[in-house]
Parts: sequence; structure tokens; C-alpha cells
Amino acid sequence: LFALMYVSRRIDSKYKTDYYNRVMAFYRYVVEKDLSLSLAQTDMKGNRSLRPSEQEDPDMYVHIVKRDKNGIYVSGAKAHTTQSIASNEIVVIPTRNMTEADKDYAVAFAVPANTKGITMIARPLKETETTMDDSLSVIGRENIEVETITIFDNVFIPMERVFLNGEYDFAGLLAMMFPTFHRFTAISYRAAMADFLIGTGKLLASYNGVDDKSNIRRNLAVLISYKETLKATAIASSYSCTYDKQASLAIPDIIFTNVGKLFANENYTDVVKNIVDIAGGLVATMPSYEDFENSNEKTYLMKYLAGRKKEETMERVRLFQTLREFISSLGSLYLAGMIHAEGSIEASTMELCRSYDYSSSIDLAKFASGINDELEK
Amino acid sequence: LFALMYVSRRIDSKYKTDYYNRVMAFYRYVVEKDLSLSLAQTDMKGNRSLRPSEQEDPDMYVHIVKRDKNGIYVSGAKAHTTQSIASNEIVVIPTRNMTEADKDYAVAFAVPANTKGITMIARPLKETETTMDDSLSVIGRENIEVETITIFDNVFIPMERVFLNGEYDFAGLLAMMFPTFHRFTAISYRAAMADFLIGTGKLLASYNGVDDKSNIRRNLAVLISYKETLKATAIASSYSCTYDKQASLAIPDIIFTNVGKLFANENYTDVVKNIVDIAGGLVATMPSYEDFENSNEKTYLMKYLAGRKKEETMERVRLFQTLREFISSLGSLYLAGMIHAEGSIEASTMELCRSYDYSSSIDLAKFASGINDELEK
Amino acid sequence: LFALMYVSRRIDSKYKTDYYNRVMAFYRYVVEKDLSLSLAQTDMKGNRSLRPSEQEDPDMYVHIVKRDKNGIYVSGAKAHTTQSIASNEIVVIPTRNMTEADKDYAVAFAVPANTKGITMIARPLKETETTMDDSLSVIGRENIEVETITIFDNVFIPMERVFLNGEYDFAGLLAMMFPTFHRFTAISYRAAMADFLIGTGKLLASYNGVDDKSNIRRNLAVLISYKETLKATAIASSYSCTYDKQASLAIPDIIFTNVGKLFANENYTDVVKNIVDIAGGLVATMPSYEDFENSNEKTYLMKYLAGRKKEETMERVRLFQTLREFISSLGSLYLAGMIHAEGSIEASTMELCRSYDYSSSIDLAKFASGINDELEK
Amino acid sequence: LFALMYVSRRIDSKYKTDYYNRVMAFYRYVVEKDLSLSLAQTDMKGNRSLRPSEQEDPDMYVHIVKRDKNGIYVSGAKAHTTQSIASNEIVVIPTRNMTEADKDYAVAFAVPANTKGITMIARPLKETETTMDDSLSVIGRENIEVETITIFDNVFIPMERVFLNGEYDFAGLLAMMFPTFHRFTAISYRAAMADFLIGTGKLLASYNGVDDKSNIRRNLAVLISYKETLKATAIASSYSCTYDKQASLAIPDIIFTNVGKLFANENYTDVVKNIVDIAGGLVATMPSYEDFENSNEKTYLMKYLAGRKKEETMERVRLFQTLREFISSLGSLYLAGMIHAEGSIEASTMELCRSYDYSSSIDLAKFASGINDELEK
Ligand SMILES: Cc1cc2nc3c(=O)[nH]c(=O)nc-3n(C[C@H](O)[C@H](O)[C@H](O)COP(=O)(O)OP(=O)(O)OC[C@H]3O[C@@H](n4cnc5c(N)ncnc54)[C@H](O)[C@@H]3O)c2cc1C
Ligand SMILES: Cc1cc2nc3c(=O)[nH]c(=O)nc-3n(C[C@H](O)[C@H](O)[C@H](O)COP(=O)(O)OP(=O)(O)OC[C@H]3O[C@@H](n4cnc5c(N)ncnc54)[C@H](O)[C@@H]3O)c2cc1C
Ligand SMILES: Cc1cc2nc3c(=O)[nH]c(=O)nc-3n(C[C@H](O)[C@H](O)[C@H](O)COP(=O)(O)OP(=O)(O)OC[C@H]3O[C@@H](n4cnc5c(N)ncnc54)[C@H](O)[C@@H]3O)c2cc1C
Ligand SMILES: Cc1cc2nc3c(=O)[nH]c(=O)nc-3n(C[C@H](O)[C@H](O)[C@H](O)COP(=O)(O)OP(=O)(O)OC[C@H]3O[C@@H](n4cnc5c(N)ncnc54)[C@H](O)[C@@H]3O)c2cc1C
Repeated sequence: LFALMYVSRRIDSKYKTDYYNRVMAFYRYVVEKDLSLSLAQTDMKGNRSLRPSEQEDPDMYVHIVKRDKNGIYVSGAKAHTTQSIASNEIVVIPTRNMTEADKDYAVAFAVPANTKGITMIARPLKETETTMDDSLSVIGRENIEVETITIFDNVFIPMERVFLNGEYDFAGLLAMMFPTFHRFTAISYRAAMADFLIGTGKLLASYNGVDDKSNIRRNLAVLISYKETLKATAIASSYSCTYDKQASLAIPDIIFTNVGKLFANENYTDVVKNIVDIAGGLVATMPSYEDFENSNEKTYLMKYLAGRKKEETMERVRLFQTLREFISSLGSLYLAGMIHAEGSIEASTMELCRSYDYSSSIDLAKFASGINDELEK
Repeated sequence: LFALMYVSRRIDSKYKTDYYNRVMAFYRYVVEKDLSLSLAQTDMKGNRSLRPSEQEDPDMYVHIVKRDKNGIYVSGAKAHTTQSIASNEIVVIPTRNMTEADKDYAVAFAVPANTKGITMIARPLKETETTMDDSLSVIGRENIEVETITIFDNVFIPMERVFLNGEYDFAGLLAMMFPTFHRFTAISYRAAMADFLIGTGKLLASYNGVDDKSNIRRNLAVLISYKETLKATAIASSYSCTYDKQASLAIPDIIFTNVGKLFANENYTDVVKNIVDIAGGLVATMPSYEDFENSNEKTYLMKYLAGRKKEETMERVRLFQTLREFISSLGSLYLAGMIHAEGSIEASTMELCRSYDYSSSIDLAKFASGINDELEK
Repeated sequence: LFALMYVSRRIDSKYKTDYYNRVMAFYRYVVEKDLSLSLAQTDMKGNRSLRPSEQEDPDMYVHIVKRDKNGIYVSGAKAHTTQSIASNEIVVIPTRNMTEADKDYAVAFAVPANTKGITMIARPLKETETTMDDSLSVIGRENIEVETITIFDNVFIPMERVFLNGEYDFAGLLAMMFPTFHRFTAISYRAAMADFLIGTGKLLASYNGVDDKSNIRRNLAVLISYKETLKATAIASSYSCTYDKQASLAIPDIIFTNVGKLFANENYTDVVKNIVDIAGGLVATMPSYEDFENSNEKTYLMKYLAGRKKEETMERVRLFQTLREFISSLGSLYLAGMIHAEGSIEASTMELCRSYDYSSSIDLAKFASGINDELEK
Repeated sequence: LFALMYVSRRIDSKYKTDYYNRVMAFYRYVVEKDLSLSLAQTDMKGNRSLRPSEQEDPDMYVHIVKRDKNGIYVSGAKAHTTQSIASNEIVVIPTRNMTEADKDYAVAFAVPANTKGITMIARPLKETETTMDDSLSVIGRENIEVETITIFDNVFIPMERVFLNGEYDFAGLLAMMFPTFHRFTAISYRAAMADFLIGTGKLLASYNGVDDKSNIRRNLAVLISYKETLKATAIASSYSCTYDKQASLAIPDIIFTNVGKLFANENYTDVVKNIVDIAGGLVATMPSYEDFENSNEKTYLMKYLAGRKKEETMERVRLFQTLREFISSLGSLYLAGMIHAEGSIEASTMELCRSYDYSSSIDLAKFASGINDELEK
């Protein structure tokens, strides 16, 4: 909601609107009632090379279909909204910048999840269920977030919950600011995931008796660097935050935030490669829980699945099984999440290049090449 | 079996043994009866920094426990043997080079899969089953290979099926030659997989209306390059094969084979990254088959899951579902397979650096730096 | 010239022109007189986001300024033409595909290098000279190719040397076919360069006593893979060539050629990283030839620059010096050459994605996802 | 010197020595007299797979050859000492950890650069000179740091300047702490370099009219990410510093520092690739200063070297020339510096893996896989 506070101030000051107060009222309401929120930003988008208003089916992006003095009516659908099933309120904001033609698509609001006209269709749980059945692993049981397609069929939104209503020139700013705040939470979640992998990698290599080999150290260094680089950009981003007077908010540094996000997106598959390299083939072929229930098979398995020391066998087995779930059952979820969450690589690259302030770099280049005799600063 | 033919000739000529004839007899037998084989090379290995004979539990590598005039008795276990459940005969060879102390571990033989004393424990089928249930995808249903841990408990092998029996100085050559031949088959399997991904990527991007964007082209170029580089190394490897007179065999070029294998190992996660990048978040959140059975939900889904054109919606849905299975349910299998099959990256790097003939490179370096005045050739 | 033969046949058959005979006549002339050629394809290009005919200055691409019955008059300039100074004839072809508006830019011809109106300005020789002075290294002395900017100021080209004269629809094909043939030569030159680096890397690591360390093997494997992958794509490309009946020519496979070229472009800096990693800091700080002339300093240097064995010291010194020249003095030349020669990465990616035949991949994807029940082939 | 303060406290407290006071006295002396220091840590090392005391020539690492009550006598040589020629005092510390056998190699001290018995041999200046001659570029003229081989031939060091004298168990800590502090300075120098490249890349792409193309944005994002990731790790490292009571010093966080350093080492060639990709072939073939002095050639050059706008031509030329010097003349220096300075990649990877505290990661892995029921913290 910080992004809404930040942007609403700016809209109000340009258009003499009253969004900031609406946002603050909603914010207080959420805090008081201890409500959970989900954020629906990403639209279905149809043909990605057309703008919202150019789509064959106008509902490909959520938009205003009718306005009356009490509120607005919206239709369309948002893709992959995390946790919407479990939350009380859905916050809807635009997914991208808009032009004048896309005016009706420049819309932001909050709405209770159980409002009439809202339908949610969840991603398949099969995979998660597979994991849940397995009594050995905790990871699947504890981490069940479910994404939905969230469909709006002529849903009424009362005026006091409308936070953007056609001011298309602010859609882009709002679309950009939301993830900026959001990425902080993302960092801690990702760091935890990396921690799981670092620990698993270190243990599996130790069980194999090879954790101090040069090649394994290279693998571990990739896992460690992934986590610590994310943490570093998060720290740098808060440390270099700017204070926004209008909204009384500290804004995390956009460049550090984006650099960290892009690093996370681009390097996650490298992390996967390195943990699989450490683990070896058993990450695919480790027998499952049931095989350990047959006592004859169990004896063989406990004998042959030993690594360095017999006593560690069961730990080794569980780590392999859990890593398999992580990579397999939860695989597409984590891969898509790490590569796409909060915007695809291309979108983030574009944003980074646009928001970067090149002036001091250009000064230095001109100075170094003798074009300018002095550095401006 | 070509590797056995090749190596047995060499052992025979050094030790006056009769392995080549045994191998050829077995080969004729297999061809006549049209038997299927599986190859058990990779041992359990326990502590990876100890040699076979140094392990706490001597059974960590398959080895000879007794010899009599009719044959040998072997114990130990082989990890991840592909297709052993479905095959008639198991061919066992050493997983690495051996020293004199590892003499009893220098053993190769063939044995019917249903021989007394052999137990096989399969990798979990849960994942594959998940896929099989899904009536939309073919990929899971058709590709069910199952790896097993194959345990030998004092199994008798009659002499005519024993192909290596303590000649430890040939264990390494055999261990290396087997995969060299094996990798040919691997190439075609991998190229098919890459083809599936190229087609899926091209179609998904087309449905999204973005298949000619610069960033998508970069993604597709990675997929195409993966496949075509593998194919190129395979072609170069047969083209540059050497003919072995002793065994009357064409031996694929070891360097090209290994370079192709390493390329496949090192770059597979990059392929995954690029296909996920093309696909977007729906690869994780696309609803599954059942959601399309409820007619109300189906109407919404068919409307909102459209890309460029309405008529393509169902194709788009199926491709996303199949790609999810590929990445998720079959994920750890493919990842481990692509990164480890036929030897880990470290093992292959070692092999490449050892088998490379540096002489002409060294000549050139010495000439270029003025150490030698002339190039030898 | 093969590209010209190939394309001229096609133009002739569409436009009833007589280019093929002109090309063949020129070809015979070159062979008879044993003339050397240079190829001028890349134009100056000015603003890269505008087409040739849209440029502020029309001379940014070489074009026809006047036509009479004896020939054409051309103006404009070609950038970085290799070896033009030393060659007898310059062959000029278009740098890209053209539209009708660019008609006058669709021009190809051959012209003697000393024709009136042609001016050549060479790239700076300072760097090469630096190397030439150093009596220890051969690499710089022997490899002096010089690129020029080649300027055409209203140069007359007699009709029998004109090979494209406004047939804009063939400019793209010609622009693409030329490098396809050219890249064969490029492969062998690049493989030689890689050989120099492999030999240097292997020797330097041996002198340091570390050539069998895991990390050094990884470095060497990168160098070896670079060379052997290039070679593999070259072999595959000739092996899969298609025979063109119209021009009686074997055409190398375009996909393998491009995949090899892109691999070379994308991975060259990785090669540099690995050789510098092997070499260590002395690649920058190794004293130069003159320091070895002062006998006092020489004694110290010979003592302290020893690696594994005293006798190898001078070899070690020379290899370091030569590698420094290679990376430094010749650095921008090799870097730009390896990354850009025969087309930038973006241009090659575009070409690869366009010329790739996706049909069998799409078939497979549709079959695997249950869209089609059968594979077409 | 902070590292010496930090370590000397620890030695004193174990061995009841008086090093801390010596260090502080030297520190005050340096500050008072405003002396410049250079740091000589890296030894010549000879055979890299042997320890210091195992070398054929004992002088391959600087060591104590004699001790008397007034001081010590040292021999040996240090490689690539930056700025030693221009500095007043040389600080010498061990390059690695030492065992008891290497006792005499566990030595640290400070000594005036002009002391009898010290000889310095500089790296070749040819390249730098090349650049200096070119009146257009500032970069070469202003950045002349010179590395030397610094030879010690039985040099006397008075006791009050000796900071380690055989306490071999502290050699490793000292060797590690020095670069930890040093890397802060390194960060700012590297960030400046990255700034030059960002500015140059942005300008060159603008002159070409392509700075907003997708592929160029990818290139720029690599340059920006390089700089900002370095900055982020530096910020995180100071932010997470620990305060050392013994020496009254803030110690930068070792993990963030090392992660930043490794990132810089591993990715520098990628930066080079991206700037060369942006620049195009002119980075190699841009004519030099002298060609612009001939008025005839100048007219042509000014016409044809224009990009988007005529007025920018001279700026474009200068940027290209400067970038060429940067990549070529200064090339091996920057490459070796970025890849090796303050320790090779292998050494840093080892250090990172050793100093990392795995406990919380291991906790999490055990919890997630059901081995432990609870998280320790
Ligand atoms: C696990 C998970 C959780 C998520 N949680 C949330 C959430 O809580 N709330 C929320 O709002 N969103 C959420 N998202 C959505 C996420 O932000 C999107 O996945 C991301 O923005 C990419 O959008 P997309 O999936 O529609 O992919 P697409 O936009 O379809 O992208 C697919 C590919 O096409 C390319 N592309 C698309 N358009 C263009 C174009 N015009 N030009 C060039 N290339 C183009 C992209 O770069 C990408 O490579 C979640 C996603 C995941 C995977
Ligand atoms: C899908 C699949 C199918 C397979 N099919 C077959 C088959 O049909 N027949 C068959 O025989 N095998 C098969 N394999 C096995 C395959 O060859 C092995 O997975 C591979 O050789 C790696 O061995 P590992 O799994 O035991 O891993 P490990 O050897 O345990 O390796 C794990 C990690 O430790 C490292 N490591 C291990 N030892 C050392 C050491 N001493 N020094 C430094 N680093 C070390 C490795 O480099 C790797 O990074 C299959 C594997 C898979 C995944
Ligand atoms: C050592 C060397 C030898 C050579 N020898 C020859 C030779 O003998 N004959 C010959 O004809 N040529 C030769 N070349 C030229 C070579 O083919 C070109 O360098 C190459 O095609 C790139 O063109 P450019 O240098 O003009 O770079 P540019 O085209 O300016 O490219 C610079 C950057 O801008 C990007 N870019 C340019 N236009 C666009 C656009 N419209 N959209 C998006 N991005 C764009 C490129 O992708 C690249 O990243 C040689 C080059 C070198 C370095
Ligand atoms: C521009 C520049 C400035 C510098 N400034 C200073 C300075 O001011 N003061 C200072 O003290 N130093 C300085 N250095 C030195 C720098 O710290 C070293 O270059 C670095 O530590 C690597 O050492 P080396 O150059 O001897 O390479 P080497 O140690 O010879 O390394 C070469 C290769 O061999 C590998 N290798 C070496 N030993 C082993 C082993 N036992 N096992 C496995 N692999 C091994 C390395 O990983 C590397 O890949 C500078 C270096 C440069 C390039």
C-alpha cells in the first residue's frame, strides 16, 4: 500500500483529487481488522504486442466498463494472483504504463475477495499434493501458496475504494512503485530459499566426503553468492532510501532494488544447476518413503544409501527426497516465480535502463576521453 | 557392447585371455534372441574421496567376493540403472579406473535380470504417475524410463559371461569407452527433447504475439543453439572417427564426443531458463485438466486464456500444461539426467583434459612466442 | 565469390539479367592473374535506426549516384575492410536487405583498389608496431592485417564488373550468403588462435606446477571446448551442405554455420577470462625485453621469474610477453573481431531465428502435448 | 594497516609480544610525515603446488635469512607491487597461511623503499606510453600506476618495524585481513571504471541512434549491474561491519566483501564483451589522432564518422579512441587486475567457503527435510 500512498499524493496534487485520504482510510481499516491482502497486478494480456485498448477482446486487461456517481464497474481478469484465495481483500493496480487511449484501463482499487462477480481459479494442486503426502518433507506442507486467475465480471467498486480512475499518466508510476516495495519481502523469501539450498548442498557434499574439493567449493560459492548478493542489494537499497515528504514515506532505492531483482531472475537456474551438480543422480533416483516401509528393502537401502558414515544415512535420504520435491514437484512454481515474479527480465531491464541516472557516468566518459576538461562534480 | 569388444581385444593381447570371444558370443546371443540390455556402471560409491578398496563397507562398489573354476560371485550395488526393470540382461562394468589394491573391483560381466540374488529398487513413480493421469499430455505417458538401484547379493556369474576379472589396468579404459559409444544415443534423445522445447517456445511466443521481438529471439537462439551444437558435435565425432583394426570397429572421436557431452551438461539449465522466460508465469499457474470440465469455469478460462487468436486457446493451454509437466513432474529426472548422465561435469572435465593431445597447440604457442623458430608440422 | 555465383543465377533467372556470366568472367580473371581480393561489405551506417535511404547524409551507405550505358558511378564509404591496402581488387556488396526505397543502395561490383576516386584510411598501427619492435614475439610480426575505411568518391564501375544494380529484393540474400561462405575461412583462423591459447595455457600452468589442479582443468576445458566446438560446427556444416544445381556449388549448411559463428562471438571473452585466470598477474606485469638486456637486472629476473624448473624460465618469460601482446596490443582488434566480425551478435541472432526451419520442432511439440495425435514424419 | 592493527592485537595476546605498539608507532609516523605506502604481499611463488619451504629456490617467497637482536635480514621477491616506485614505504606481509615448516616465511614488516638491498623492476611502460602520446585521451595520462617486482637481497629490518617474526599460525589471518580492508578502496576504483564504461556505452549507442533498442538495453544493464552490485556489497559490508574491541576497529563484513570481490573478478570480461558489443567494429578500426591532422583525410573522416548527428562526430571519434586505449593498451593490466587483484578466483572461492558460517543454513535444511522438528532460532 505504500506505493499507493506515494502515488496518490502525486495524483492529488496534479488533479486535485482525494485519493490519498481514501488510501489512508483503507490502510487504517486493514490494520484495525487485521485483514490479509493479495495484490492483483498482472493482467491476462492476450496479444502482448498490442496495448490494452487495442486487444481483440477488451477484457484482456481489467478495465472500467461503467461509471456512476457511487462508484465504478470493472471487468477483465488478473493472472497468477498469489494468495488471493486466502485473503480478505484484493488490491488491484495497473500492470503497465498507459496512453490516453487506454484511459479506462488506468484503474486501481481494493475490493473484498468475496464480492459478487469475482471468480478465482487456482493453479493445480496436484504437485503440491504429491509433496504433502510425503510425510518426510516439511517444505511442501508448509509453503502452500496458491496462485489464481482472478476474474472480474462487472464488479461494482464503491468510490471510496477507487484509487485510480482514468488518470492514465500515473498508471506507469504506480505499476513501477508497487514492485519496488514488494521486492523487499521477496528478498527475504528468496534468501530463505537460498539458505535451504546452501545447507542442503553443504550437507550432501559432506555426506559424500567431498565438501572441500575445489569443484564443490565452486558450486557452494555460487549458492552463497546468490543469497548474499540479494541481501547486499536489499541492505544497500534501504540504506540509500530517499524520504518522500509528500507521503511521509521512505522509498527504497530503485536502482539497487532492480539490480537485485534482475540478479535473482537471471541467476536462479544457475543456482539449480549447482545444487544438482553437488547432489548427483540420486536427486532423481532416490527411492521414496514407501520403499522404506518394506523391511527387506529397507535393510538394503540403509546399507547402500550410506555416504561417509552409516549413522548419517537417513538424514542423507531425507535431504535427497526433499531436494527432489523442491526441484520437481515445486519446480515450475519456483522457476517461474524466480524468473518472472514482479515482472519479466525484459520488463525489468527496460525499467532499469530508463530509471538509471546516466549523468555522472557521461560526465566521466567525456572527461576521460578529453571531450570535457573538467568533471562537473 | 562395442566398448567391450574394443577393450577385450586389448586385454586379450596383453594377458592372453579370451574375453573378445566371450563378448562376441554374448553379442550374437543378444541379437539372435532380440534381448534388451541395461547398463549398470555407476556404483553407490559411499565416501567419494576414498577409493573402492578403502571404503568402510566393501560393498559400496560391485566387486568379486569369491572365485571358483566355473565363475565368480559378486556383491555390491549399482545406482540409477536406466531401464533395468524392463530389460532381459544387465551389463555390468566398472565406474572408474582402478589400482592394484582395487583388483577385485575390476570386474565386468553380463547377467540375466532375473538371476537369484539380484534386487532392484525403482525410483519413485509418483511424478510420472501424476503426468500419466493427465489425459492431455503425451510426453509423460510415452517416456517412462525407470532407474533402479540394482543390488547384487553374492550373485554367481558363469565364466563365459565374465568380461573383466581383476585386470585392473583396463578398468579405466573400459569405464571411459562405454560412455563414448553411449553418448551417441544420448545425443539423439537430447536433440528430440530440445526439439520439443524449440517448438513449444516458438508456438507460445507466437500465441503471445511476440515471437519476433529481440528478447524472444535471444531466447529461441539459445534453444536452437543447444540442439544444433549437440548435433554438430555428433556429426563431427562420427566424421572424425578412427577405425580400430583389432576389434574391427569405428570409434567415435573422443574429444568431439566429450566436448558435446560437456556442452549438454553445462548448458541445460540455461535452456530451462530460456523456455521459462519465453513462457511467462502461466507455466506455473495454468489451471489443470479438471478445471476445464466444469462448464462455467471452462467458459471463463477459454475466454481469458486466449492469446493472439481465440481459436488457438486450447492449443496454448495444452502446451502450457505439457511444459509444466516437463519442467515440474519430470523436472528432477531431466535436470539430473542432463547434468550427470554418463558422468558428472568434474569427471568429464578431467577426462577431456587428460585425453586431449596438446602437442600441436604447444608447438604453435612456442612458435608464436619465439621459443621455437619453426612449426613442427 | 561463391556467394555472387549463387545469387547471380537467381537474379538472372528472375530478371533475365546476365550477372552470372559477369561473375564467372571476373572469377576467371582473378584466378588467371592470381589477384588478391578484399571484401567491402559493412557500410558506415550513420544512424543505425534509419534505413540507407533515410539517412541525413545519403553517402552513409555506398550507392549509385549516376548510371550511363557504360557503367555506374558510386559514392559512399565502407568501414573496416580487411586487407584492402594489400589487395588488387575490392569486391563490394550490400551490408543488409533493402526495400524499394533503397534501390540505389542495392549495388554490388568489383573494382581495382587503385581506381581513381578511392581513398583508404587505415586503422592505427601503433599497437601493431609496439609488438613488431619486440624481437621476442612472432605473433605480432606475422599477423599484420590492416583494416581500412574505404571511401568511394564518384567512382566509375564499368558494366561488366557490376553484379547488382538496383535489384533490391536480392540485396538481403547476397548480404547473408557472403558471410556464410566467408565463415569457413574464419573458423580455421579462429581455431589457430584458440590453439595458441590452449598451448600457452597448458605451458604456463605446467611451469607453475598446477596444470592438473581441478580449477586449472576447468580453465583449460573452456579453451579446448571453444576450439573444438568451432571445428565441430565447421565439419557439420560441410557434411550437411546442400548442392545448388543452378550455380553448381556446394552451399555450407546455414544453421550450423551460424550456430558456430554465434558461439564464437558470445564466448570469446570467456576464453580471455580463462587464459588470464590461468596466467595470473604476470600477464600484466612481466618486465619487457629491454629489462633483460641489463645484466644485473637479468640475473635477478632469471632467478625470480622461474616457475617449476630453472631451465624453463626464459620460455615462461616469452610466453607471458607474447600473451600480453595478444591481450593488450592486439586486444581491441581481436575482441572486436571475435565479437563483431561477419555481423554483430544481434544481427546474427536475427538471421538464425529467421532461417531456422521450425516445422519439425512444432510438430513434435504439438504431438507431445496431445494437440496432434501423430507426428507428420 | 588496519589489518596489522587487528592481527597484532591477537598475536600479542597469545604470545605476549609487542607488535600492536610497533604498528601504532609506524602508523603515527606515516600520518605525521604524510608518507605514501605500497603493499607487497604477493610472492613470486615458483612452483605453485609446493609450500614456501618446499621450493627448490628458498627465495621464491620473502623470508628471514638471519636474525640478530637489532632486527632481521630478509631475502626473496614480491611480484606486482602497485605503486612501489612512487611510495616512501613498503609494507610487506605474507601471501598465504603457513605451517611450522614455513616459520621463516611468516614475516611482516615495513621498510623505506630506498633501503639498501631493495631493487624494483617495473612492468613495461610501452603500452602506457602509447596512450600518453595520444593527446586526445585523458585516461592513460592520468592513471599511470606502475607495478614492480620488488626484490629483497639480504635487507636489514630494524626490530621496531617487524610486525610478524615466525608466528606462523597468524600468517593466514594476516593474509586474509589485509585484502578485506584493501577491497574497500578497490570498490571505489572499480566503480569509477564502470562509470566510465556506462557513460561511454550510453553515448556511443546514442550516437548510433540505438540506445533504446532491446539488445542495447541488455548490454547497458550488464554495465549498470556490475557497478551497482559492487556498490551494494560495499555498502552492505560497512553496514554489517563488526566492531573489534581489542583493536578498536570496525571490521567490514568478510562475506559481503568477498562476495563483491568474486563478483567483480568473475564478471569483468562480461563487461568487456558488452561494451565491445555496443561499440561495434570501430573500437578496433577507428583511425588515430594523426589521421585527423591531414586536412584532406580529415574532411573525409569527419563526413563518414558521423553517427546520428554531424555535430557529435568529434565526440564520437574521441570516445572510440579512448575506449580502444582502455581495452587495448591498458587491456592486460585491467584484465589481470580485475581477475586477479587481491587474490585469484580460486583463492577467493576457497576463502569464501571456509569463512562462511553454514549453521543457520544447515538448520533450515534439516528442518525443511524433516530431520529436525524445529528451527534452532
Ligand atoms: C509464482 C508467481 C507468483 C506471482 N504472484 C503475483 C502476484 O501476487 N500478483 C501479481 O499481480 N502478479 C503475480 N505474478 C505475475 C508476474 O508478475 C508475471 O508472471 C510477470 O510479470 C510476467 O508476466 P506474464 O507471466 O504474463 O508473462 P508474459 O508477459 O506473457 O511474458 C512472457 C515472455 O514474453 C515477453 N514479452 C511479453 N510482452 C512483450 C513485449 N511487448 N515485447 C517483448 N517481449 C515481451 C516477456 O519478456 C517474457 O519473456 C506471479 C507470477 C508467478 C510466476
Ligand atoms: C536419469 C539418469 C539416468 C542414468 N542412467 C544410468 C545408467 O543407465 N547406467 C549407469 O551406470 N549410470 C546411470 N546414471 C548415473 C550417472 O552416470 C551418474 O549420475 C553420474 O556418473 C554421477 O554419479 P553420481 O550420481 O553418483 O554423483 P556423485 O559421483 O555423487 O557426484 C556428486 C557430486 O560430487 C562430485 N564428486 C564426486 N566424487 C568426487 C571426487 N572424488 N572429487 C571431487 N568431486 C567429486 C561430483 O563432481 C558431483 O558434483 C544415470 C543418472 C541419471 C541421473
Ligand atoms: C577486425 C575486423 C575485421 C573486419 N573485416 C571486415 C571485412 O573484411 N569486410 C567487411 O565488410 N566488414 C568487416 N568487418 C566489419 C564487421 O562485419 C562489422 O564490425 C559488424 O558487422 C558490425 O558492424 P559495425 O561495426 O558497424 O557495428 P554497429 O552496426 O554499429 O553495431 C554496434 C552495436 O549496435 C547494434 N545495432 C546496430 N544497429 C542496430 C539496430 N538497427 N537495432 C538494434 N541494434 C543495432 C549492434 O547489434 C551492436 O551491438 C570487420 C570488423 C572487424 C572488427
Ligand atoms: C594490476 C595488478 C596489481 C596488483 N597489485 C598488487 C599489490 O599492490 N600488492 C600485492 O601484494 N599484490 C598485487 N597484485 C597481485 C595479485 O594479488 C595476484 O596477481 C594474485 O594474488 C594472483 O597471484 P599470481 O599473479 O601470482 O597468480 P598465480 O598464483 O600464479 O595464479 C595463476 C593461476 O594458478 C592458480 N593457482 C595458483 N596456485 C594454485 C594452487 N596451489 N592450486 C590450484 N590453483 C593454483 C590460480 O588460481 C590462478 O588461476 C596485483 C596484481 C595485478 C594484476
